[in-house]
Amino acid sequence: MTRINKPAHAAQHNFPTVNGCLQIGGMPLTRLAQRVGMTPFYAYDRALLTARVAQLRAALPREISLHYSVKANPMPALVQWMAGLVDGFDVASGGELATVLDTTMPPAAISFAGPGKSLAELRRAVAAGVVIHAESEREINTLADLGQTLGLKPKVSLRINPDFELKSSGMKMGGGAKPFGVDAELAPALLARLATLDVEFHGLQIFSGSQSLDAQAVMDAQSSAFALAFRLAQHAPSPLRSLNIGGGFGIPYFPGDQHLDLAPIGEHLQQWMPRVQAALPDVEVVLELGRYLVGEAGLYVTRVVDRKESRGQVFLVVDGGLHHHLAASGNFGQVIRKNYPVAPALSTGAADEVRETVSVVGPLCTPLDVLAAQMELPRAEAGDLIVVFQSGAYGLSASPTAFLGHPAPAEVLV
Amino acid sequence: MTRINKPAHAAQHNFPTVNGCLQIGGMPLTRLAQRVGMTPFYAYDRALLTARVAQLRAALPREISLHYSVKANPMPALVQWMAGLVDGFDVASGGELATVLDTTMPPAAISFAGPGKSLAELRRAVAAGVVIHAESEREINTLADLGQTLGLKPKVSLRINPDFELKSSGMKMGGGAKPFGVDAELAPALLARLATLDVEFHGLQIFSGSQSLDAQAVMDAQSSAFALAFRLAQHAPSPLRSLNIGGGFGIPYFPGDQHLDLAPIGEHLQQWMPRVQAALPDVEVVLELGRYLVGEAGLYVTRVVDRKESRGQVFLVVDGGLHHHLAASGNFGQVIRKNYPVAPALSTGAADEVRETVSVVGPLCTPLDVLAAQMELPRAEAGDLIVVFQSGAYGLSASPTAFLGHPAPAEVLV
Repeated sequence: MTRINKPAHAAQHNFPTVNGCLQIGGMPLTRLAQRVGMTPFYAYDRALLTARVAQLRAALPREISLHYSVKANPMPALVQWMAGLVDGFDVASGGELATVLDTTMPPAAISFAGPGKSLAELRRAVAAGVVIHAESEREINTLADLGQTLGLKPKVSLRINPDFELKSSGMKMGGGAKPFGVDAELAPALLARLATLDVEFHGLQIFSGSQSLDAQAVMDAQSSAFALAFRLAQHAPSPLRSLNIGGGFGIPYFPGDQHLDLAPIGEHLQQWMPRVQAALPDVEVVLELGRYLVGEAGLYVTRVVDRKESRGQVFLVVDGGLHHHLAASGNFGQVIRKNYPVAPALSTGAADEVRETVSVVGPLCTPLDVLAAQMELPRAEAGDLIVVFQSGAYGLSASPTAFLGHPAPAEVLV
Repeated sequence: MTRINKPAHAAQHNFPTVNGCLQIGGMPLTRLAQRVGMTPFYAYDRALLTARVAQLRAALPREISLHYSVKANPMPALVQWMAGLVDGFDVASGGELATVLDTTMPPAAISFAGPGKSLAELRRAVAAGVVIHAESEREINTLADLGQTLGLKPKVSLRINPDFELKSSGMKMGGGAKPFGVDAELAPALLARLATLDVEFHGLQIFSGSQSLDAQAVMDAQSSAFALAFRLAQHAPSPLRSLNIGGGFGIPYFPGDQHLDLAPIGEHLQQWMPRVQAALPDVEVVLELGRYLVGEAGLYVTRVVDRKESRGQVFLVVDGGLHHHLAASGNFGQVIRKNYPVAPALSTGAADEVRETVSVVGPLCTPLDVLAAQMELPRAEAGDLIVVFQSGAYGLSASPTAFLGHPAPAEVLV
């Protein structure tokens, strides 16, 4: 008989277990739950954020700037912490702009992208002095008008819809017809148009996709981005100051997913840097990362309300669910639902520990409210804490918190 | 050559077009947008809510009570309006309970269901005097304890996980192993347990699924629910006062969907009523409907921010999107994304009107933010209003409003 090993979740090393209890920021999760005073809650670990940025700095060429894409997690305390770690912020709305302007990050290190920026948002961005990633001819003209009205010179980069895509990507954002940016083949005309306007040209943003776990695919996309930037730079109204090559670095969520290998990406960028510096002497190369910086530093913590059996299956009904963590329920961009890594906060990990196959479901009256389907876990009872790992990005802010009228969760940075 | 007709959306008759402009509540949508003062917004039509309840009353036996399931749309003004139309409310959380207790609906006509009710929620429900649909033995015991503590007799119905399911259902909630209610085969033991406790037994709730457009499937599920109720009534501690047979009535969202045919459902219930009254003389039969009551009475209204072409495709970038209307973006329980009915507010409908194939996308930096993919619409420009129909249920409250930090939409009842 052949034994088939089912794919497993990547091992969780970020949160150690001490005396059988998961720790975050050096504190047992059971104690943190008392400090927070309620469940469910999200907890993010400062030290892990710092360590992740350090890991990237060690792997990547020194000349590469790291930007944090605030949409991944806009919690203000977390954004404040990131301000001391990264070289810049990227925002996607007036709301996110307000959050980052409350940090010490200089406006020139802040960029604003988005396919449907409103007039009010563009006005705020020009007044703030941040770099605007323009995404259409209409937006460029509006920015020039706003500059005149406000007596300011808008800082403008052009966002390019590249003629390639990031392969093996969770979300393709380049290649083909897209609402993001300006098609690469139309960019020369828009760069010429920019030369005629009273704006400060900053450079290019070339974003081809996100959530890739395939180092080769990331490297290929980066090579294509550099090559495209070299071609387009010939049409630019002035030398590029900034080249944002996007991000795309993924983190492992599902069984079988492996951590992205940073080492070859770092070496590959190192090989590109002399050519980049020769072709674009004054350019700052920016890597824009969201999920990769914060996703693995966060937990979503719930408490078991009821333990039920139905027709041979065990259900742990917990006090949190899809209204707080839509992605973990499988309802955010997934075609086939797969389990996030989930575990009880208390477990000995010993061989004789009782394990069982359970489904972890939320309190909502909908069959969509599932945090783990048929997963083997150490036995848990009503009152126990159940944790969803890999929850630092696209968690609370990407969830329908008002759905069914339950209280919002707490959110803490430890 | 064979001509194949692509499936089309069901015709929209609820909102007439006058002088080329869509009307809601007798007002052109362009004027309503000025009254609201901003886009995007949701608008719900009072008269359509009233008409829908009247249509149901005409089709169904007089003895059937209609409950509104507040989770479909908890907007307080709408819930207040519904209080004058329906016979009761069903709530799914302490938050929804607070909303309905602010109406004139008597507490005994309010029921509270949900697989993970917290102790605090159960206490509030007992104190309010509403009927609690108990979903586990643990919950029954907790309710009896709370009754003693509060000096009140909790009103308790038993929620049953039936041994059948609503076929052709958008969401199955019965049949098989489920976290909802108590398995039918375990119910006799729990009904016996209820007889020993100091609680007021009210009846049974049997919910087998939702969003079905197949009248025969709805009738089959109703027959099964009555048969199951007759069997279980023999084990009940006292005669059933209430039998909630769920809802399950769907509305057409996608191309090819047809309106549910109420007439045969009404006749079928009429045939059942004598048998129900013979078997359960004092019972009130409750139909619990959410989406069916409110879904077709609502619009989501956005404004075009930019009109872009990319590699041969036209994109209308609007100021609203998945952060306000997750279901229309295809990210809420759909496996394959399909278009909701979408149209510009202004269109002549004339044969010579310019039509084109466009994608309507939101302002978010994610490829998930799509309100209509490759749909043929009358030509629209920046500044025009674009409407998503069938948006009265599971719209705003089921969406991640904080995602990417954009402003919340307005919500109006007209």
